[in-house]
Amino acid sequence: MRNLTQDNITQAVIARLAQTPDPRLKAILTSLVQHLHAFAREVKLTEGEWMQGIEFLTRVGHITDAQRQEFILLSDTLGLSMLTVAMNNDKPAGCTEATVFGPFYVEDAPSFDLGEDVARGAPGEPCDVSGVVRGLGGEPVAGAEIHVWQADAEGKYDVQRGEAHGHRARGVLHANGKGEYHFRSILAEAYPIPDDGPVGDMLKATGRHPWRPAHLHFMIKAPGYETLITHVFRNGDPYLDSDAVFGVRQSLVADWVKQPDGRYKVEYDFVLNPAGEAR
Amino acid sequence: MRNLTQDNITQAVIARLAQTPDPRLKAILTSLVQHLHAFAREVKLTEGEWMQGIEFLTRVGHITDAQRQEFILLSDTLGLSMLTVAMNNDKPAGCTEATVFGPFYVEDAPSFDLGEDVARGAPGEPCDVSGVVRGLGGEPVAGAEIHVWQADAEGKYDVQRGEAHGHRARGVLHANGKGEYHFRSILAEAYPIPDDGPVGDMLKATGRHPWRPAHLHFMIKAPGYETLITHVFRNGDPYLDSDAVFGVRQSLVADWVKQPDGRYKVEYDFVLNPAGEAR
Repeated sequence: MRNLTQDNITQAVIARLAQTPDPRLKAILTSLVQHLHAFAREVKLTEGEWMQGIEFLTRVGHITDAQRQEFILLSDTLGLSMLTVAMNNDKPAGCTEATVFGPFYVEDAPSFDLGEDVARGAPGEPCDVSGVVRGLGGEPVAGAEIHVWQADAEGKYDVQRGEAHGHRARGVLHANGKGEYHFRSILAEAYPIPDDGPVGDMLKATGRHPWRPAHLHFMIKAPGYETLITHVFRNGDPYLDSDAVFGVRQSLVADWVKQPDGRYKVEYDFVLNPAGEAR
Repeated sequence: MRNLTQDNITQAVIARLAQTPDPRLKAILTSLVQHLHAFAREVKLTEGEWMQGIEFLTRVGHITDAQRQEFILLSDTLGLSMLTVAMNNDKPAGCTEATVFGPFYVEDAPSFDLGEDVARGAPGEPCDVSGVVRGLGGEPVAGAEIHVWQADAEGKYDVQRGEAHGHRARGVLHANGKGEYHFRSILAEAYPIPDDGPVGDMLKATGRHPWRPAHLHFMIKAPGYETLITHVFRNGDPYLDSDAVFGVRQSLVADWVKQPDGRYKVEYDFVLNPAGEAR
């Protein structure tokens, strides 16, 4: 295998993958090599552009740490995340739709009882959130594990503020025996994704804004059901039609209503897909 | 732009790139998004596999530092580097062929006079290297700037050994008025690319060996000529037909001959392409 040219190198690389024991890995890498090479060939990538790509990815790697996941941000802004979500969440009609996971979930969020305030002092207008978790047949999902996380009034998640305040505006709750949940938090606001790194440079170079419409993140788990990863978006937000990460679904948009006492209120009911059910 | 599906999200992302001021960047990103999405769609990438990809790239980023460039290694082992070299070095017949740059070049290598020993104590059998740098018309390229770098007898470049020894087995020389160069170094040996990181894990998972056939790296610059980035490979090496990075060209293979005094000797003449000349 010498003297490979632009015309036969792709087949040579694929031949080198022939002994891969795991057939799924073999299929994924074979497809990846074909499409990566097809991209380079289509644009006739120069050596200087190749080096710019290496340097860009190096910056993405170096800004990524336990608090910041720039590779997820890159995948989100290139639409790869939402494409993956769309391909893998072809649920029966009536189920709550999924959207992107995003880079700001953390595994050790604090637990709360129903009715508690998950904001823990995060800046923002007070807001009450409530609803019911049901299965596709309408049955309540008693005790469903509900993870919630959101940005504050200044558009920052707690993990973007360092360790000083600990976890704020995020937590884990469990629905009651009727599948009901309610908690207090702060009003979700539109915010720019972190744009002081390489992904921000890419957005600026392409004339794209970094804004996401206001939303609350939810991940809901219950035995016998598919885990649901989704958002609830705030109706009227100016960025609903130009979300920087392509995640908006009309079925996930809800009204956040200001009450006479000055508190906002949003209600949203979730419908989980029974495990093993696909459309 | 709401409710994007796996069928229309690619066009939506491309539409978001429409305002990119630089037409080349717009073309590159548009092609990248199409091929990235086509890959994900072809294999129907799962959310778990997507996360494995994010974690793999994160590891590549975190192991990369001033001494180690795992993104270049990844590009090399997927054949992208050699494809890029092949597309951009379509030189006239008679010119020395190019091959991959690799991850081990450093910018501040020491300068040497002709005849000096660039090894500086790096372990290995002594070797004399010499030849002539000419242009395509046969004219000597007086004063050509010759960068050379290589691994030692244990298969390590100096930058893989930390700072203790400084630069060894690498340097910059200038050809004399007749285009001639000669220097002393050590015998090039086959070596495995660094396989204790994510790229090594990829090679193991695909049943690939990490070896490169023995070679000397050269980068040769001279005014009026295209910069040449290439290797000289050692004839008889068992890995010439299975180079882990797909870089071998038969025209770059030379005989390294043991002399009566026990020193190895290799001669190689380079032919540079005049700047602006393409086939």
